[in-house]
Amino acid sequence: MSGTPKLDFLFSPKSVAVVLKSGGLGAFFLQQLLDGSFQGRLYCVCGNADEFMGLPCYPSVRDIPGPVDYVIIAVSANQTPEVIRDCAVKGVKAGTLFTAGFSELGTEEGIALEREIVAIARSSGMRLIGPNCMGIYCPGGGLYFSANLPRVPGWFGISSQSGGNAIYLGKMAPRRGAPISKAVSYGNACDINESDLIEYLADDTETKVIGAYIEGIKNGRRFKEVLEKAARAKPTIILKGGATEAGAAVTQSHTASLAGSLRIWDAVIAQTGALQADGIDEMIDLALLFGYMKPPTGRRVGMVGIGGGISVLAADAFEQKNLSLTRLTPAIQARLQDLHPGAGNIYTNPIDTTALFYETDGFRKTIEILDDWDEIDIILLHVPYDILAFLTPEHVRHLAMTEKMIANIEGVRKPVAMLLHCAALKESYELSCDNQEICWKAGIPAFTSIEGCASALDKFIRFHERNAGRG
Amino acid sequence: MSGTPKLDFLFSPKSVAVVLKSGGLGAFFLQQLLDGSFQGRLYCVCGNADEFMGLPCYPSVRDIPGPVDYVIIAVSANQTPEVIRDCAVKGVKAGTLFTAGFSELGTEEGIALEREIVAIARSSGMRLIGPNCMGIYCPGGGLYFSANLPRVPGWFGISSQSGGNAIYLGKMAPRRGAPISKAVSYGNACDINESDLIEYLADDTETKVIGAYIEGIKNGRRFKEVLEKAARAKPTIILKGGATEAGAAVTQSHTASLAGSLRIWDAVIAQTGALQADGIDEMIDLALLFGYMKPPTGRRVGMVGIGGGISVLAADAFEQKNLSLTRLTPAIQARLQDLHPGAGNIYTNPIDTTALFYETDGFRKTIEILDDWDEIDIILLHVPYDILAFLTPEHVRHLAMTEKMIANIEGVRKPVAMLLHCAALKESYELSCDNQEICWKAGIPAFTSIEGCASALDKFIRFHERNAGRG
Repeated sequence: MSGTPKLDFLFSPKSVAVVLKSGGLGAFFLQQLLDGSFQGRLYCVCGNADEFMGLPCYPSVRDIPGPVDYVIIAVSANQTPEVIRDCAVKGVKAGTLFTAGFSELGTEEGIALEREIVAIARSSGMRLIGPNCMGIYCPGGGLYFSANLPRVPGWFGISSQSGGNAIYLGKMAPRRGAPISKAVSYGNACDINESDLIEYLADDTETKVIGAYIEGIKNGRRFKEVLEKAARAKPTIILKGGATEAGAAVTQSHTASLAGSLRIWDAVIAQTGALQADGIDEMIDLALLFGYMKPPTGRRVGMVGIGGGISVLAADAFEQKNLSLTRLTPAIQARLQDLHPGAGNIYTNPIDTTALFYETDGFRKTIEILDDWDEIDIILLHVPYDILAFLTPEHVRHLAMTEKMIANIEGVRKPVAMLLHCAALKESYELSCDNQEICWKAGIPAFTSIEGCASALDKFIRFHERNAGRG
Repeated sequence: MSGTPKLDFLFSPKSVAVVLKSGGLGAFFLQQLLDGSFQGRLYCVCGNADEFMGLPCYPSVRDIPGPVDYVIIAVSANQTPEVIRDCAVKGVKAGTLFTAGFSELGTEEGIALEREIVAIARSSGMRLIGPNCMGIYCPGGGLYFSANLPRVPGWFGISSQSGGNAIYLGKMAPRRGAPISKAVSYGNACDINESDLIEYLADDTETKVIGAYIEGIKNGRRFKEVLEKAARAKPTIILKGGATEAGAAVTQSHTASLAGSLRIWDAVIAQTGALQADGIDEMIDLALLFGYMKPPTGRRVGMVGIGGGISVLAADAFEQKNLSLTRLTPAIQARLQDLHPGAGNIYTNPIDTTALFYETDGFRKTIEILDDWDEIDIILLHVPYDILAFLTPEHVRHLAMTEKMIANIEGVRKPVAMLLHCAALKESYELSCDNQEICWKAGIPAFTSIEGCASALDKFIRFHERNAGRG
């Protein structure tokens, strides 16, 4: 692939107009652009108003003096043909329709109205995102579809048929260490659809990992081709909404999507080399692994952390996902016992020594033993917050254990992941968030649940096993 | 069952002695008793010290002037025979051995030492909890085995072979609405074991729901009998640690437990009528259902909340757990459309109307429709925090949607559960915690993940289906 990806113009408009009705939700889109870092020209079209939120208003897009690259449309559905006609005349390149009330209603009128706006846009070559969607979040281009979205561009590219899921990913993925390059919520997909967006993200140099939430697909053959291409280019994680009959009934009303047969779906995705996530948080778990972990040489895990009972449960959860916790040799056990003498420690795998909270030298040596041992492919460190009798969240913060662990894995050759779990108290949850940030800033993926960590690691390793088999 | 349950004396000692070594962790046990609401006499035995943490010290338990009901022992393992001999002479009724370094080491010496202390205790009729454990948390008796434990007595009784898991449950279950009656961490179970504790909790009038974390069992036949009796008396939720080979390897080092065959285990539990949890948080999910939800008449769920994409994913997750989301009739859909006109709403099941954030009258009427309709057995309300573009956590808090929802389900006849999910931001998590409290204080169980909610509801309903079949 060479040159600029086809849809690149969507993400760096020099001028944006927001077409809204007074009292409607469109004002919030304008607010995000005013609050954010949008550097271009910003216009407002709002009925007959002269001014809105401090911006001069124009009666229509046609009346805006300079060129307009991109419009955000948040008027009633029946007003959209006129607005898009104005955009077409003006030569607007693209528009997002926040407006709902089209094919997702399932009515003849709704379907006809959607066809009408597509025809008008096509007449001038204008591209449409939506309708019934949130449009674009692109920190690099200064575009924001929600409050509370980070301003820093990242590497996780999102294509989402659902606006809510796109917003959740836009907030949660960066908080956990997968900042967003571009995220597009595309709703009914009357023009730009899942295949266009995945194709774009595959070509986009800023995007390193693709995540797609899909309710229905517009063209099965093209989708398969695009997904194959995308999965060859970079890790591509798919989350299917409407996998059950009940779910599919909702996709029809949500984005007018026919969810299709799950059996065929699973087979297609497997053939393309893309991965399937089992939920929205697993999509983030997988993104973190692809973002930060190098391919492991196998599925043997060495686990080091604190807590006997929780180590037992972690071992169970990992083994249930076919991750093996290699039994330590008597020689290694003896070395660990020398490093961490005293009762109450466990020298099997997981290794459990409460002393890890206090002393770093023994920790460093423990990690070196695992790093040097051939029978381990991945090192997993875990810090449970609220299982220790004598440590309040303030103590745990003060002990800076995560910071010390991260400092002491410097130079370790094997892939390392962190599990920060068992946060029962509000303060522990806050600390967990802060510690997660320390981890991913040091290039270590951090998980928050045993089961989530085990499932994502299993899928990540299977992905690499399959690629090795193909290579 | 009549009279006081056999082990009741453990939970309301009038006098407690802590036997510790200076600089050891035993001081923290003393601290908890000093900080907490323990109303009885408190003594300290600490080597040759005259005073410790403001308390006068005695050279041994024998030297304490008044009677001593209960001791907490936190000295080195090799000192424990002497301490227990002193206790036996003094006539101490029971003791917890925090001290580790016994049979869990897997050494002949460790096993012999454990046998020795049991023999000494038996000679005087003294009962032992542990060794290698945290002992008792009982807010009613003023006994605390950790910092940050609530002071208010509750109804969830815990028997846990792991100290860490007991502490996590002691903090997390009350925060989520299942406050603790008694929680006992019993480690190696040299004397008092899983069967004794489950039997006690079955008889204990304060305990309404039992949760047991078990790594190994001492006597299979007795365990089965006790569990049958307990499950007949009240909901009994079992979490098995060491269900896999890797997990079982850890239980041996953790609490000297032989985890046994999982196949036999599953069969035994099913026969007794107890429930199995798949993780420590599911144990809490189930406790909340038993604590707050009346038995549903079936598995048909009516779901009302906000967010199209998240409704699709919820529908999928529920159907995968055999909970059916009954399709609404055209007549009901039309009534909902009248209540919540406008585009962007979904009138299938789940029902999705963002207006729920703002207006309560339509919400109340929606709930009445579902409550009156015969094709729904359970009503599930859900509030996702970070999927809405225009609402910051501060807005969501200000809108008091959970409070309004709870106020508006007053008088509803069908069982109701709440799902408070998609908290990406720290502030949303805090709000979720506050909202959970509002729910359970109003008698509504609140869940925090779609999958967790679906899995617990499925098990809860299966439990009642099975009981109906038996009854």
